[in-house]
Amino acid sequence: MNEKAKKYVDLFRRVKIAAAATVDAEGHPQARIINVMLAEDDGMYIVTSRGKPFYKQLVETGEIALAAMCPDCQSLKFTGKLRVVDKSWVDKVFAQNPGMNEVYPGESRYILDAFHIYAGHGEWFDLLHYPISRETFAYGGDTEEYNGFVIQDACIGCGACASACPQKCITPGTPYVINWAHCLQCGRCAEACPADAVRRLHP
Amino acid sequence: MNEKAKKYVDLFRRVKIAAAATVDAEGHPQARIINVMLAEDDGMYIVTSRGKPFYKQLVETGEIALAAMCPDCQSLKFTGKLRVVDKSWVDKVFAQNPGMNEVYPGESRYILDAFHIYAGHGEWFDLLHYPISRETFAYGGDTEEYNGFVIQDACIGCGACASACPQKCITPGTPYVINWAHCLQCGRCAEACPADAVRRLHP
Repeated sequence: MNEKAKKYVDLFRRVKIAAAATVDAEGHPQARIINVMLAEDDGMYIVTSRGKPFYKQLVETGEIALAAMCPDCQSLKFTGKLRVVDKSWVDKVFAQNPGMNEVYPGESRYILDAFHIYAGHGEWFDLLHYPISRETFAYGGDTEEYNGFVIQDACIGCGACASACPQKCITPGTPYVINWAHCLQCGRCAEACPADAVRRLHP
Repeated sequence: MNEKAKKYVDLFRRVKIAAAATVDAEGHPQARIINVMLAEDDGMYIVTSRGKPFYKQLVETGEIALAAMCPDCQSLKFTGKLRVVDKSWVDKVFAQNPGMNEVYPGESRYILDAFHIYAGHGEWFDLLHYPISRETFAYGGDTEEYNGFVIQDACIGCGACASACPQKCITPGTPYVINWAHCLQCGRCAEACPADAVRRLHP
């Protein structure tokens, strides 16, 4: 994976505590706290036990989303794909996370399976320092995804968007330009534009 | 809502930082860090802006899952239903969370809508103290949900389940009994039972 993605995968591992989101068999969202157990060059690794609804959801969908809060109040989010890997990964997880032995002593660790999150994309977001900042990343063949807005050629240069922006991250131009790295993605510019020139990049 | 539910709704608010999980239009799980802005007698309140994919997912599904980590290393999870409420709730949120004015100054706050999480069920889980403990809660007409295992009358009293349990929370009886409050829900008892007497309560 590239250096930027590795930086954020390592950050997930350093924070360690993350929320994992899945979709259950009825299509409802489910979330629970997990640990990111390993961060390797080929992705992140987690474990869970075969008796849990979480396990079933992971196997049935092959998908997981993660969100984590860094100690200094920045946040991470991620959406990716995963698969079960062999038992040697359970041993690697226990070697690097020895506290797991208190919860699953001895042979009982093998009720767990390890999952390799082999591909995905995510975003780091810092809401608490001005200006707010965001950076996207991806690995395993997935592509970075930017969910914000773009100002198109229909822009009439009136500046309504720049006035409306809570973070003042829109600068004049033809058309006006949103500074993506500092954008809240709140959509106030799109609502303010009289020319309907501000569109969501991924509708 | 009952006292037990209020205790955990208040805890979500006290922790404040939570991960919110949704299902997107393609059925994929999505997660991001949010704040639980208010905990009232009728449920929790959050805000988000109309430009975000998160907003669209909330409106289209009417569903959200939350997971949070308490400061003393216990965790909370929750699945519930929500709806947009009127703008006075945005003002209430800003009154009780004044830091929001730095991100959305002045009138720009009204690009946000407030959502009332009016019903749902969840679980508190403490993995770091022995014995591990869990407690379920629900409000708004939803019912508490226990996702673990139960030992049925087919139990032959061999004790294989009790031996297999990593947390030693199964006691002899006819049939043997799982102490739900201290169960990992790992399923090792179910795999160990020679009589196929251990079943998931909600298959």
